[in-house]
Amino acid sequence: MTQSTISFSPIGIIHSEHTVAKETPIQPTYAKGCRGTVEIFPEFTKGLQDLAGFSHLYLVTHLNQAPEPQLIVKPFLQDIPRGVFSTRAPCRPNAIGLSIVELVGIEGSTLLLDSVDILDGTPLLDVKPYCAKFDLIENTRNGWQDEVDEATAQKLGLREYEANK
Amino acid sequence: MTQSTISFSPIGIIHSEHTVAKETPIQPTYAKGCRGTVEIFPEFTKGLQDLAGFSHLYLVTHLNQAPEPQLIVKPFLQDIPRGVFSTRAPCRPNAIGLSIVELVGIEGSTLLLDSVDILDGTPLLDVKPYCAKFDLIENTRNGWQDEVDEATAQKLGLREYEANK
Repeated sequence: MTQSTISFSPIGIIHSEHTVAKETPIQPTYAKGCRGTVEIFPEFTKGLQDLAGFSHLYLVTHLNQAPEPQLIVKPFLQDIPRGVFSTRAPCRPNAIGLSIVELVGIEGSTLLLDSVDILDGTPLLDVKPYCAKFDLIENTRNGWQDEVDEATAQKLGLREYEANK
Repeated sequence: MTQSTISFSPIGIIHSEHTVAKETPIQPTYAKGCRGTVEIFPEFTKGLQDLAGFSHLYLVTHLNQAPEPQLIVKPFLQDIPRGVFSTRAPCRPNAIGLSIVELVGIEGSTLLLDSVDILDGTPLLDVKPYCAKFDLIENTRNGWQDEVDEATAQKLGLREYEANK
């Protein structure tokens, strides 16, 4: 099977208070109160029209500080090796990140965000609205994640963020 | 701002019954019963470990048959021009698709799927588990989408899929 190369260019850049990977919450759900912004490059500003009506956005990012890809990883929430595609770990074959952040406001070409789990300076590839019609799936099975209780997840999900505040 | 190029290689390919874009449901929620498979390339098979416990997956795809990017588009669900980042339309600056599909089973390096809204032959960039802890967001505001009633969305979401069965 030929594996062609696919090229993308960033449409913007993320600014956040997170500058050290191990002190960065692993998911937006553990990053409440972490403000951040997205600077959309001027040539794409027009595409932000109508976005302000949405409370939550998917940010598709290039995890440019991710470690080398590994197929088996220990996820942040559990000390058991798992297949990388069953985790949200950054050391994936393609270092593509997916974060659901809260949209607080839009000022020109800047998105004001809450619940930001993304390292400062991360390139942005795409913005999509979180749409309840498409994205709110109830009654899912969540594999090994169902073994992690919420209190443990909250604690581990923050990583060293709280300890270093 | 320098806009560097970011390169990815597919980790697999999607096989589905959808061969014509305009006859393809616009989202998995309108594609119940549409079976499909993902063929993961052999070098990545090991990364599928532990995935079978999850009922739903995000597929991050390269929308290689998407039309030219446009910043203002008429979404499938409403005949009003909208900023592309407030829609899930494929004609985005970076043609990256995001589908939440149902995982029916895994056979070797093949994922058996339901609710597939993806064109046959689409390259796969990443697989991530849908995790209720991270991804089930209640009480969202959904912008212009909240103006579209569910019956209309169901009808338009299928596009010409039903008519051509």
